[in-house]
Amino acid sequence: MFELLNQDPASRARRGRLLTSRGAVETPVFMPVGTQASVKALDPRELLEMGTQILLGNTYHLSIRPGLEILQEAGGLHRFMNWPHPILTDSGGFQVFSLAKIRKIKAHGVEFRSHLDGSLLFLGPKEAMEIQRVLGSDIAMAFDDCPPHTATPREKRAAVDRTIRWAGECREQPRAEGQLVFGIVQGGTDPDLRGDCARALTELGFDGYAIGGVSVGEPEAEIYRAVELTEPHLPRDRPRYAMGLGTPAQMVELVARGVDMFDCVLPTRVARNGTAFTRKGTISVKGGAYKRDFRPIEDDCECYACRNFTRAYLRHLLNVNEILGLRMLSVHNSHLYLQVMVEMREHLAAGTFAAFREDFVGNYVPTQRVLTGRVQVERER
Amino acid sequence: MFELLNQDPASRARRGRLLTSRGAVETPVFMPVGTQASVKALDPRELLEMGTQILLGNTYHLSIRPGLEILQEAGGLHRFMNWPHPILTDSGGFQVFSLAKIRKIKAHGVEFRSHLDGSLLFLGPKEAMEIQRVLGSDIAMAFDDCPPHTATPREKRAAVDRTIRWAGECREQPRAEGQLVFGIVQGGTDPDLRGDCARALTELGFDGYAIGGVSVGEPEAEIYRAVELTEPHLPRDRPRYAMGLGTPAQMVELVARGVDMFDCVLPTRVARNGTAFTRKGTISVKGGAYKRDFRPIEDDCECYACRNFTRAYLRHLLNVNEILGLRMLSVHNSHLYLQVMVEMREHLAAGTFAAFREDFVGNYVPTQRVLTGRVQVERER
Repeated sequence: MFELLNQDPASRARRGRLLTSRGAVETPVFMPVGTQASVKALDPRELLEMGTQILLGNTYHLSIRPGLEILQEAGGLHRFMNWPHPILTDSGGFQVFSLAKIRKIKAHGVEFRSHLDGSLLFLGPKEAMEIQRVLGSDIAMAFDDCPPHTATPREKRAAVDRTIRWAGECREQPRAEGQLVFGIVQGGTDPDLRGDCARALTELGFDGYAIGGVSVGEPEAEIYRAVELTEPHLPRDRPRYAMGLGTPAQMVELVARGVDMFDCVLPTRVARNGTAFTRKGTISVKGGAYKRDFRPIEDDCECYACRNFTRAYLRHLLNVNEILGLRMLSVHNSHLYLQVMVEMREHLAAGTFAAFREDFVGNYVPTQRVLTGRVQVERER
Repeated sequence: MFELLNQDPASRARRGRLLTSRGAVETPVFMPVGTQASVKALDPRELLEMGTQILLGNTYHLSIRPGLEILQEAGGLHRFMNWPHPILTDSGGFQVFSLAKIRKIKAHGVEFRSHLDGSLLFLGPKEAMEIQRVLGSDIAMAFDDCPPHTATPREKRAAVDRTIRWAGECREQPRAEGQLVFGIVQGGTDPDLRGDCARALTELGFDGYAIGGVSVGEPEAEIYRAVELTEPHLPRDRPRYAMGLGTPAQMVELVARGVDMFDCVLPTRVARNGTAFTRKGTISVKGGAYKRDFRPIEDDCECYACRNFTRAYLRHLLNVNEILGLRMLSVHNSHLYLQVMVEMREHLAAGTFAAFREDFVGNYVPTQRVLTGRVQVERER
């Protein structure tokens, strides 16, 4: 199911191949986020052209709109959105704890009110797995309790206990044919909680393991710490997925810490605000600085936007609210995220990952605005 | 410059070929509207795939944003927006009279305040031709006086006199290399005014003739009447362009009345409201009626949207405000507009236009909402 192809001698980084019922996924992999059955502003052809291997969809959002009945009639999520390639679906745990209003945690799930119309809903291990079975995703995520990083130690312990119990319930539910199921490790930055959770989930024997609770507003150092506390407890022969992260440089650092899979709304979200990712950090294309700049967003970038348009033109489009502007920034940013993964796989195969990491992270100047904006961004997943 | 290839024996319809410095344009032709250097929501590849031959750009909007300096530095409009194929630019006359606030008509143009920031601007024959020269469009439009259809007879006469005088001034301005210039016939539905204007412009010897003042809020019958009053006075060996029109069935009726060229914001505008054009009229894809409809927007349609997505999926996207929804409706609607032109050219070549016209117009059920919405739509050009 997961083949380990290369292990970096100087870090925890590894290259692998995850086999799903809809084909192999080369890791490290970035999964563009299609929360509502669409990667914002992009079409399937663009996604394929930029090298997308697997998309992310969301149980919470899709079960509210368009609703399970329509997805069932459509023949599942792949057919509904015309994406015949692998899809991973998040369980809705994160959304129930971040988006939903007035929630009540019960033994077998969470009662909450929809963030849209306030209607009373219930989501637990049984429901989340049932929805993901109907969606027919290639990888389903277990339903977890995802507390804010400001939670008390007692709350975090309770969340871990609940996450473990619910993971066991998820494991017992029927799944779609060939569907893999990943557990989600919680526990914040507490070594005992992370270790306990990781070991307990490993005993349940999932097909992969996610590191959860790492995109809920904590500083960057805590993100790394949470991953470092978790990774040693996870089986080497299973993929590890860091949920909702991060900037390009953070992803390189996380791969160096043993992470294989990523999803993040940043590339498409900041695009809609007129910001482009580059290998040197983000630039505000919408800003006046580029209005006479007739170079592409990034020299040597092979994305459709950079092959066809200048910064000056894209700046104009963003400035006059033309949709093509945010479309093209979404193309460029998503392409860069995927391209960084391609390069990491190549360097892992060639044994040159350490030099790549040093070079990439050294050149990348993080933008505080993006880092602080990240919290809001992830909440909207 | 304009080659007349077929003349329908039963109507005024004709098939032709307009030679521009950037290649031939087969007529009847529909020109997607790229007011601000972008056809709303579409990229150049999509436009080419759906068979776009020539785009429309706008002097008024482009001279305000990004401004002439930047367009000049970019090397003209084609290079700025990466569209190496023909472009026709409107002169800004229509916008000055419909969009601008507080205008003062002077001998050599109009002083007005920008609809954006209220800054004082001046546009006349000299300025409009100068801007279009810098834009480097393949076809420039003369600067005209475009009164509302509610104007008094005296106002309409004055507008026609001014339009003729300004047309003469436009004719004398320098133009970009190979740039064609079209005159715009005004005169509402007054036979004398239309005749006078058409004859006077013809004497000035333009490369083509537009029928203006036909998308400023008048009923459908008046549109046809304005065209019928103008067309007999125009030279047969020059292309005729009906500005800002119309629905698919209206375009067929206008071709039957001797029109060769069209532009209209309807296909992309109604798309953004969740409405799709079909050969039977418009449908509100966003409406609940299609939420379980797993057919494409139109059977047998070859556009990217219909080859890839169902009404149910597109309805979901529109319903949850995913950009891909309005993108795909923009693709479908624009494709249909272009396809109707392809079919008219084929039927004109085969001598079967009369039957096509009867069939097409008979099947098309106009939607009042679209017809009445048209006024607003055109104003935003």
